[in-house]
Parts: sequence; C-alpha cells; structure tokens
Amino acid sequence: MSRVEALLREILERVTPTPAERERVSSAVERVVKALERAAQELRADVRVEVEGSFAKDTWLSGDVDVDVFLLFDPSVPVEELRLKGLQIARRAAELLGVSWRERYASHPYLTLELGVCDVDAVPAYRVPSPAHIKSPVDRTPFHTAYVEGKLDANPSLRGEVRLLKRFAKGVGVYGAEVKVEGFSGYLLELLAIHYGSFLSTLKAAAKWKPYRTVIDPEGHYGDPREALKRFREPLVVVDPVDPKRNVASPVSLDSLGKFVAAARAFLRRPCPEFFYPTPQPLPPLEELLRQRAVVAVKLRAPPLPEDVLWGQAKRALRALAHGLERFGFTVFDRAAWAGEGELVLLFELEALELPPLEKHYGPPVYSDHDERFISKYAGGGCVAGPYVEGDKWVVIRPRRIRRADEALAKLVATYNIGEDLTLSARTGFEVYAGESVLGAAASAEYKRFLGEWLIRRPPWLLSSGN
Amino acid sequence: MSRVEALLREILERVTPTPAERERVSSAVERVVKALERAAQELRADVRVEVEGSFAKDTWLSGDVDVDVFLLFDPSVPVEELRLKGLQIARRAAELLGVSWRERYASHPYLTLELGVCDVDAVPAYRVPSPAHIKSPVDRTPFHTAYVEGKLDANPSLRGEVRLLKRFAKGVGVYGAEVKVEGFSGYLLELLAIHYGSFLSTLKAAAKWKPYRTVIDPEGHYGDPREALKRFREPLVVVDPVDPKRNVASPVSLDSLGKFVAAARAFLRRPCPEFFYPTPQPLPPLEELLRQRAVVAVKLRAPPLPEDVLWGQAKRALRALAHGLERFGFTVFDRAAWAGEGELVLLFELEALELPPLEKHYGPPVYSDHDERFISKYAGGGCVAGPYVEGDKWVVIRPRRIRRADEALAKLVATYNIGEDLTLSARTGFEVYAGESVLGAAASAEYKRFLGEWLIRRPPWLLSSGN
Repeated sequence: MSRVEALLREILERVTPTPAERERVSSAVERVVKALERAAQELRADVRVEVEGSFAKDTWLSGDVDVDVFLLFDPSVPVEELRLKGLQIARRAAELLGVSWRERYASHPYLTLELGVCDVDAVPAYRVPSPAHIKSPVDRTPFHTAYVEGKLDANPSLRGEVRLLKRFAKGVGVYGAEVKVEGFSGYLLELLAIHYGSFLSTLKAAAKWKPYRTVIDPEGHYGDPREALKRFREPLVVVDPVDPKRNVASPVSLDSLGKFVAAARAFLRRPCPEFFYPTPQPLPPLEELLRQRAVVAVKLRAPPLPEDVLWGQAKRALRALAHGLERFGFTVFDRAAWAGEGELVLLFELEALELPPLEKHYGPPVYSDHDERFISKYAGGGCVAGPYVEGDKWVVIRPRRIRRADEALAKLVATYNIGEDLTLSARTGFEVYAGESVLGAAASAEYKRFLGEWLIRRPPWLLSSGN
Repeated sequence: MSRVEALLREILERVTPTPAERERVSSAVERVVKALERAAQELRADVRVEVEGSFAKDTWLSGDVDVDVFLLFDPSVPVEELRLKGLQIARRAAELLGVSWRERYASHPYLTLELGVCDVDAVPAYRVPSPAHIKSPVDRTPFHTAYVEGKLDANPSLRGEVRLLKRFAKGVGVYGAEVKVEGFSGYLLELLAIHYGSFLSTLKAAAKWKPYRTVIDPEGHYGDPREALKRFREPLVVVDPVDPKRNVASPVSLDSLGKFVAAARAFLRRPCPEFFYPTPQPLPPLEELLRQRAVVAVKLRAPPLPEDVLWGQAKRALRALAHGLERFGFTVFDRAAWAGEGELVLLFELEALELPPLEKHYGPPVYSDHDERFISKYAGGGCVAGPYVEGDKWVVIRPRRIRRADEALAKLVATYNIGEDLTLSARTGFEVYAGESVLGAAASAEYKRFLGEWLIRRPPWLLSSGN
C-alpha cells in the first residue's frame, strides 16, 4: 500500500460515521420528519416532507452533520402562504419535539431545530415537476439530491471519495458557498468526485485548473466549453447537471479557487494529514508581530443581519476602504474581516503606517479653464515645488496633509459609503487602531487567533508537510 | 494704447536689430559668402553659396544671431564628395578669413566659423528642383527660406510678430528643436506667426491647443485634419507648407507644448516682460532645499558626442533609470539631466530616499510548475508572511533587500543598459549622490543654478506676474 493510500484509508476511517453515530442521527431525523408531518396535518397543509442534503445522500462527515428536511408545497400555493405555513409547521414540530429553534433566512425564512445530536433545518420549498419550473433556488435541491443519489447508488464506493474531498476542502479552508468563505458547496464537491471518479483524480485534475478557463460539464449540456465560458464569467465553471443555465461553482471566488488548486498540487507532492485536519499553529507573540508589520483596523458594531448579508457588506467595505487608503497614498498589502460577539473588525495590512512628508499632486490640464484657480491656489505658497507643467498638466509637490494611516482610515470610515447598514453603524460610533493596539480591537481569544493566523498567512499544510 | 500693446512695443524695440548691428552682421556675412565662393572656385567645386535661415529672412533677434550659409551642390555629386568638398571649402574659407572654426554635425558634417560679431554655419546641401527631390533634410531649407521670405515680403510688419514670438518661446524655455529642448524651431514659429497673422493671435490660438488633437495646415494640404492626425501621431501637428509629408512640429515634446500653452494663457491674462526676458530667480539655500526633498543623482563622464546624440542618450537613461527605481519600489516625482564641463548629472526627485522595511512580492500562479521552487524558497523562512495564495498567485511579504535610493541607483547604473555610450562611460566609473550631497555632484555655478531652478520648478513668469 502506497503512502497516500495508507493516509487516505486512515482519513476515511475518521470521516465515515460509525454505525452508532449513524443510528443516533437517523432516529433523530426520523422523529423530526414525523413531527413535521404531524404538524402539517394539524395545520391542514398539503406538504410532502422529504430529507435532502448530505444526510439523504449519505455523504456527511462524522461528527459534523447538519440535516436538511424540506417541506415541499404544491406550486399553486402562493409564496406568502408557503412562507407563513412553512414557519408555522416547523415551529409546531419543535413544540411537539420539545426542542429549541432559531429562525434563519435563505430564499425563504426557515427554522433550525436544535436536536442535540444534530441541527435540523426545516426548509419550505416547492415540489416542481422539473428544474425548469423552479420558483426559487431551494426548489432545485430535491433534484440535486436525486441526481447525486442515483450516481452514488450506482457506485457506492464514491461516497468515501466524496467524504475525503469534503474533508480536504474543509481542511484547506474553502468549504462552503456562503459569502464569508466564497468556496465549494457540498453539492459541488459531490459533483467533482462523481465526475472525476475519485478523490485523487479530482485533485489531479484541479492541479491543472486555470481560472476563467476551466469548464466541467458532467452531463455535456454544452457542446463547446467556450459556449459555457461565454455564459459564465466566473473563475470556475461547473455546469449543473440538472440545470444547464446554472454554474454550480458560481460562489467560488478566485481566492478560494487558488487555494484549492495550490493545496491540491501540494498534497499530490507530499500527502499528509494536515490537509484534512490542520492542527492550530503555534503563534509568536502578537505584539511583536504587530510591531514588525503595519496594520490598521476599525471596529464597528455588527448590525443584526443574516450572515451572508453582513459578510457581503463587510467585504464591500474592505474593498472600498482599501481603495480609499490607496487614494491617500498608502500601499495595501492585504485586508481581512473578523466578526463575532456583535462586533465587526476590518483589518488592513499596509506597507507603512506613515507616508513620506511630500506628495505629487496633479492639477488640471494646461488648456483647461480651471488652470487659473489651481495656479493662484499654489503660486503664493502651500507647495514646495511648482506649480509646474508636466506633459499637458499642471503639477505641484506639496506637503501631505494626512500622513498617518489611522487618521486616514478614521476619515474614510466617517465619510465613505461602506454599505447601507455598516455606514449607519459607523455613524453611531467606531474605533480605529494602529500597530500593537490592533490586538485589543476585540477581546475574544478567537479574534486573537484569527489575527495571528492572518498575520502569519501561511497555510497549516505548508508548515508541517515540508511543502 | 493698451497695456499689452505698450509692453509689446517695448519688447519689439529690444528684439529688433539696430541699423548699426544689422550693418555689422551684414558685412561679416558678405565677407563669408565671398570667401566661400572663392574657396569653391579654388577647389573647382560647382557650388552655389546662399544665405539661409533667420538672417536671410530678417527674423533674427538682436544680440542673438547665428547665420546659416549653405553650399549648394548639384544633386549628381555623390554624397561622400559633397561631405568632403563641403568641409574643404569651409576650412579654406576660414583660412582666407583668418577666423577659427569648429566642426559639427547635422545631416552632414558642417563647419561653424567664428566671426566674432556672429557665428556662421557653412552647411553643405543639394540644390534640388523641389522638396520632393531632397536627399537629406537640410536640402529642404532653401525652400523654407523662400516660402517664409515670400510671405514676409508681402506683409513686412509680420517680421516684428515673428521676433516677438521667438523671444517669447525663448523666454518661456521652449525655443529650439534640439533634443535637449524638444521645442519650437525658428521656422515653426515663423509659420505660426504667418498663419495666425500676429504674435497675439498665435497666443490666443495656442491657449486652446489640445495635444494630439491640433492640426495647423497653412497651405491646406490635407482636406480633413483627421487625415493629418492619423499620419502624424505627435503632440502638435503643423504641416510643412513646402512638404505635406512632414510635420514641422514633430520635435515638439508634450512637455514643451504644455509649457507653451500654459505660458500663452498666463500671458493673455496678465502680460509682463518676464515672459520674454525672465530675470534669474533668487534661490533659497540649496542645502536646505535638498534636506526637505528626496533627491538622488548619478554623475558620469559625458562621452564626446554631438549634443543631440548625448541628450538623446541622457533622456533615454533618465527614463530607464526612473523605471528601474520604480521597480525597486520608489515613487519618482521628477527627473532631469545637466551636462557641462565633460560631465553629465542625472537627477531624480523621489517621494522618499528610503523605503519601508517590508515589501509584497508576487510569485508564480498556483497552477504553474514554478510553484514548488517558490514555496520551498520561502516556506523555511526569508519572509514575514506567507507563502500564501491571493487570487491565483503565490505571494509573500518579505524584508526589502534594498531600501536606500542611492544603493538602488548605483545598482541600476552598474547593471542597466542606459544607452551605448553612457553604459560604456558608466563602466569606467560613476558617482552616486543622495540628499544634500547632490549639491556637490558638479562644481560649476551653472549646475547649482540649474539644480536650484529644477528644485523650485516654478516658471519665472509665475513668480512676478502674479499669475
């Protein structure tokens, strides 16, 4: 047995649920299904209760299962009724089961029932005759489940390959289609394992993927991959087998794709368990790290928004503020966001916390009628060189008004539109940190670990694999 | 009389040669022509001696005349014979006149005879039937002379307008088509004054010139200005009246055009003598100026090349070295060259003399086969963050090896190709200066004045005109 085979066998053992775990989750799911069916009956709703997702497909990871139970309504039911009835049924089922729940939101609001052994999402959707008839994205899920189940039933050993691939994606930090991760959904990873036939074949293929040039079309919906590339202008294209108009990989960002490709190549060179189960890295003292680097941060109250909405705004804010800092003259090396405990911390690593004293400032073209104002503004002083003409523009070299990064960041946060809710939050107050003080932006140990790993910015599998 | 009319009358008086000066130069030129004719006879050369240029056209400036005397050969004479005979005739004429001379080079080598009252260039060329038959650019000159003379004879007051325009171009620093200036030739200024009808009309037109979009076509050779713009991709297009294939303004750089337009607008707003006769600006102490700014310089021995060749190489070297400094991470505000006393000083003003300690360094794409080398180079150390993946590339944050501008410049000069002769000169030695020491790069007072004006970088007419 080769080294990689031995490793994969070892990992497979860890990711495959034991019969006891399987039994525990199954009986919990059965109880939920029965409770939902009874609740639907009580509320006189014509609903089919169906288990979907990785549990239904038997591709879930040991110790790590979220079960999706769908409440499938007839397409003739108005959407308002579906939403209302869906929540009523789920709440009533929770009551019958005597478990707590929380409301969440995807295409429609849905309930997560907290069963103890696992969480179960009760998701209302429409039972449509085909993916061409869907009324909202969740309606596609039953077709995904059926497609994958069919493929896996025909070749049951693929379930292990899917589990390895999911664990790998988790281990290297690209699992999940949510905005925070912008990575690979479970369904996407299942399609890849099925398409390429195994975990290792998937990695071997991924090692050669090129962003914006790779098309995977399992059911051959497109005769020519260039057709698909023209339609889907995203880093990776995986045509949905059940719906040719959809790119299953559309949530995958260039960053996540890059990480996956990099990890795949490194794993093939030197396989090791760190790719699946990264051990937390030992962090050098953070104060020292921050002293060597040039980091600024702003802390806002996190508005109470759905995760994806909050992360969507946070990422837009990072982009806008980084752009603003560059307009001030700073060079932004990297940026990141941390959210927790009702707080949002936006982090920027710069080339330097302070800019040189002078800047070159371009004025209007020489032939413009704004020339006189520019000239008279500077001719009397306020600049150390000029006004002079360079090419067809007026120019001055002048003292920089804002040289410190924290000052610039505070000004930007106070004046920029950084997303509707974040701008509102900033109006009620925010704090700016620079250098060592960034460590104190949030109190939790989780924040400090996040900050440390962001500063080191080295994948765990690089540290121990010798890659 | 308006303020501007009074001013122009005053300037016109200064630029128009007095009868006595005119007499002195005329008799000198007459002697030269006779000597050349006699020399040609002695050497049995079929040569027509003809006075060309601003003296022939009577557009020269008082106190500032160079006379061009052409030795016009028959087109059947081989070019080697023209060159040899041309020099022989001029040298013999100098002997007959008992004056000293120096050899120079344009299309062909030529001699400058030092008459005392003025210099006279004796330039060999071909007497061709039309500009379509020219064998070298100087052959066009007699046609230029004839064209301008014809126009000025028809409207003699234009001579004053030409003189004002020439003095203005001199005053604002854009007179001359040589590579050092890349400005407006005397012929170009004559054409402009003729075309627009007066000094003031020329300035009024120039105030609205837009680079790469302005076409002046005095004889209407092109039906549509877009045709001319397609042919001449230069900042300013002035179609040669005697040769439609030639842009008389082709030597004019964007910088020179910009300066001319800026000065024209400023003059029209607030006319003052400074535009014609700038008074040397009082310079603040240069050490202090250099302390506030971030200037580096390199001094080379200037190779013994024709002016235009030396300046061509100097400008290419400035561009190459500025580009190199930016690749090191420096921001280059401006650059300039000074040549004198066999030395060439290349100057660069930067945003800062020292760069921050860390830099972001991009490695290969994740899917490239160079990834392993990059990863193994940095995974063991040598960087403070990463290797990590950003987009589809490997990246590290690493300590900068070269942070000081003088160090970077020395490295560039030692390794870059900065033009054939300058590279050779650099191989025999060069010196690098930074900060205050830049003042000592050359000893002459002329260099110090140049450096001071370059640091202040404000046109003299801005200082005193209140513009």
